[in-house]
Amino acid sequence: MPPSEYQPSSAAPAPMRQALEQARAAACAGEVPVGAVLIDPARGAVLARAHNLVEALNDPTAHAELLAIRAATAARGEKRLVGCDLYVTLEPCPMCATAIAFAQLRRVYFGAYDPKGGGVDHGPRIFTQPTCHHRPEVIGGIEESECARLLRGFFQERR
Amino acid sequence: MPPSEYQPSSAAPAPMRQALEQARAAACAGEVPVGAVLIDPARGAVLARAHNLVEALNDPTAHAELLAIRAATAARGEKRLVGCDLYVTLEPCPMCATAIAFAQLRRVYFGAYDPKGGGVDHGPRIFTQPTCHHRPEVIGGIEESECARLLRGFFQERR
Repeated sequence: MPPSEYQPSSAAPAPMRQALEQARAAACAGEVPVGAVLIDPARGAVLARAHNLVEALNDPTAHAELLAIRAATAARGEKRLVGCDLYVTLEPCPMCATAIAFAQLRRVYFGAYDPKGGGVDHGPRIFTQPTCHHRPEVIGGIEESECARLLRGFFQERR
Repeated sequence: MPPSEYQPSSAAPAPMRQALEQARAAACAGEVPVGAVLIDPARGAVLARAHNLVEALNDPTAHAELLAIRAATAARGEKRLVGCDLYVTLEPCPMCATAIAFAQLRRVYFGAYDPKGGGVDHGPRIFTQPTCHHRPEVIGGIEESECARLLRGFFQERR
């Protein structure tokens, strides 16, 4: 489907639509198109929006999820984000999944599944490890087709 | 052994002695005493020294290893640290182990083993995962007793 024809489904949660906007901004900036939004549902507040900045910062850890967690904890002045939810367009990698556990997020909603690099439903399945001390609720496949389409388009253009 | 009696073994590599200094500085600052040093052996250069700053920054991702990688990649203007080695006083957690793989470090020398939170020789054993695309050489147990003693002392004081 060409980008202009995409319409988010009416059932798409607003934070995932915002995460998709972040992912599109990442693609425009030449970054792998993954976006994340952190919300505090109890206050109805968006705590952070972020997209990949690996290329811009020359930082291999500058994934959308890590940047969102760092921005939100800095803004709140707390090292944990108890009760907060993350929306991210791609299944988190093992680095980001572990950071999500450290931050004690309540829920993770993600878009596309990532068999090659994911760490939640694939690879080390971080939240199932006995040494993982906090297990968020995980809901995968939210707006999956559009999240995956953005990534496919980005990598196809670069081949 | 009381701290004053500790003498690093003459065989201790200089970067691990520096990582231990970082860990001691962390303890003095009320941070979990873990220190890290990143070196470029080809140039004989120390690229970064860091210790945990989770409490100071309210950042659950501010582990010594992640901070050292971010500092070194920023300083070099490259998102990878090919050929570089990390010395860290504690077995890296799964977050830091994944970041080490992303940065394509050559070797990881670590001090104390961490059965409860480690991600290299314990838990998800990140570098053994089929979805891990770079596997550094790993040498554990360097100055293990002093690295572990610092951590034990820190947590005993807080009980």
